[in-house]
Amino acid sequence: MRQQKGKSTKGNDLSRLGEFGVIELFRKSAGKVRPWVESGIGDDCAVLRISKKMRLLVTTDMLLDRVHFLREKMVPKQLGYKSMAANISDIAAMGGEPRAAFLAVGLSPEIDKKTVLGLRDGLMDCAREYGVDLLGGDTVASKKGLVLCLTVLGVAPANQVVYRHGAKPGDLVMLGGVVGNSAAGFYVLMNRHRLGDRGSSRLLGSHCTPRPQVALGRLLARQRWAHAMIDVSDGLLQDLNHICESSGVGAKIDADVLPVSKEARKLAHDEGRDVRDWALSGGEDYVLLFSVSGGKEAQVQKACSDRLGLEVRCIGSITKERRIMVRRDGKWSRVAPLGYDAFRMGEAL
Amino acid sequence: MRQQKGKSTKGNDLSRLGEFGVIELFRKSAGKVRPWVESGIGDDCAVLRISKKMRLLVTTDMLLDRVHFLREKMVPKQLGYKSMAANISDIAAMGGEPRAAFLAVGLSPEIDKKTVLGLRDGLMDCAREYGVDLLGGDTVASKKGLVLCLTVLGVAPANQVVYRHGAKPGDLVMLGGVVGNSAAGFYVLMNRHRLGDRGSSRLLGSHCTPRPQVALGRLLARQRWAHAMIDVSDGLLQDLNHICESSGVGAKIDADVLPVSKEARKLAHDEGRDVRDWALSGGEDYVLLFSVSGGKEAQVQKACSDRLGLEVRCIGSITKERRIMVRRDGKWSRVAPLGYDAFRMGEAL
Repeated sequence: MRQQKGKSTKGNDLSRLGEFGVIELFRKSAGKVRPWVESGIGDDCAVLRISKKMRLLVTTDMLLDRVHFLREKMVPKQLGYKSMAANISDIAAMGGEPRAAFLAVGLSPEIDKKTVLGLRDGLMDCAREYGVDLLGGDTVASKKGLVLCLTVLGVAPANQVVYRHGAKPGDLVMLGGVVGNSAAGFYVLMNRHRLGDRGSSRLLGSHCTPRPQVALGRLLARQRWAHAMIDVSDGLLQDLNHICESSGVGAKIDADVLPVSKEARKLAHDEGRDVRDWALSGGEDYVLLFSVSGGKEAQVQKACSDRLGLEVRCIGSITKERRIMVRRDGKWSRVAPLGYDAFRMGEAL
Repeated sequence: MRQQKGKSTKGNDLSRLGEFGVIELFRKSAGKVRPWVESGIGDDCAVLRISKKMRLLVTTDMLLDRVHFLREKMVPKQLGYKSMAANISDIAAMGGEPRAAFLAVGLSPEIDKKTVLGLRDGLMDCAREYGVDLLGGDTVASKKGLVLCLTVLGVAPANQVVYRHGAKPGDLVMLGGVVGNSAAGFYVLMNRHRLGDRGSSRLLGSHCTPRPQVALGRLLARQRWAHAMIDVSDGLLQDLNHICESSGVGAKIDADVLPVSKEARKLAHDEGRDVRDWALSGGEDYVLLFSVSGGKEAQVQKACSDRLGLEVRCIGSITKERRIMVRRDGKWSRVAPLGYDAFRMGEAL
């Protein structure tokens, strides 16, 4: 969740390392883990054995004022909702059911009670909608602005956890819904003075109160349809790259058939933008991106439509060659996985 | 973990509410929880049923630069160690065994790789010492300074979880170790230019690399000796008050017999301070404070000494009258539970 292009920090240690380099520093040091750990650093959630048949899923997100959101652009309730939704989406991406949330919040003196109540209501609205209990946390004073850290726990049957690493050459790459709406909504937020709200309520909704696809994740996990899965948070290309790197494969996708809303398409057209940029690199759509066996497409689409009223779309396939190819205006080209890196924000969006 | 008296924020919404008022806003809204929740907001950890016989313990702490610590006073490694220790101590306070940690960290551009490595090494040293695996987290860019949020999971047998709410009138109040060392160490840190390090390595150690009492917590829980338990983080009086409020009881303690180190006593004497202030309200000692049946004192002391080489001390008793009385220089007086409140920092220490 971000609403601002930061200044480029090129040249300093952290931007040279990048977000994933910093994570690697921790991962390397973490070493061998104990037997109750099924999966640690490196997927949407950690996976722990809590009984023979059940697994515990754990995910944590930190959100900072002026980095991940601008308080003047989103009301506190939206901010609360979106923070909870982003974490629940990580549980969905593993095929789990979210259960419990823990909130650590840093509040500076200029933040009033109304803001805290709005934040709380947004968090709780989303939690209730998805059957999540808020069970604890921490409340601290910050020097400046708002700091949020959410941890969400979920559960999944032992044989139904879906990782990033299961994609196989020949698999189809599928998307649980439209992409680019959140980036378009962000564009509306940043240009509201000029654009007003015309025709943009769906886009703003996608950006401010996204709906994680828990039911879809469960269905795909229960039926063992998804070989690999992730949620689109950093950006479609980058998230697809996570799947490919974890699985040791590549992918080719067709940008010309990406599911995009007509609202986003119209806005992009009116503003002289290419809607495919929002769709490929915007991120924060919180739809599921997954791979299924070639030939399962129709069965998966029918089940999602019949049971969830959801249109899932095939956008490409998994390849043996370890690279990501994108078709645009009929031409294939190899792409760098553009998307969000916390320490290289200047390059994103 | 704090190293600075903040400006008093008296008068604004948050300081009027106080830390526990803000928590109450969330607790009220959390409502009825699902059956797998044994205990939510309001103790050192949340307690979840993960199987018939086992409980999952979850705790979260947020630590902010210039609020909870001063980077120029503690090296990154100490900071990392202390952050992990504070969370592990919450698991210890419930009688549990810590198992897994999740770290969300916000880093600003001026923070270099060396600092990140130091932080990591401190976190991992403490984690390894206590058998904890680092299993995930989040890495984000902050505008300014360092933001840490740690979540630690632990486990305990279902019938061995110790809450704050079990204290009974007639119980003895006991302490797992000396108090006041951390506050004295903080005093040394803040006056280092004048004091140097003379005679203070134990005090600095207590402040910078505290040792949570996991083995003591397990022993007291396994033997069902502790009726109520908490770790001394906010300050002895305030933490005792948490036990009393949760249990619907009061307490009387004797400040003249508090276990205090000779180093802290000497420093206080040299500096014209009263060491009992550090012991009663300083906090961050991370020793366990617990109540046991009257008459069990000798048995508990012998077991702790024999098995853990630990001197636990009786400092008072639980009373039916719901107030905290402290004896000082032979005189009893009723005290307000002075200690740490995140939004009323000017009043603390």
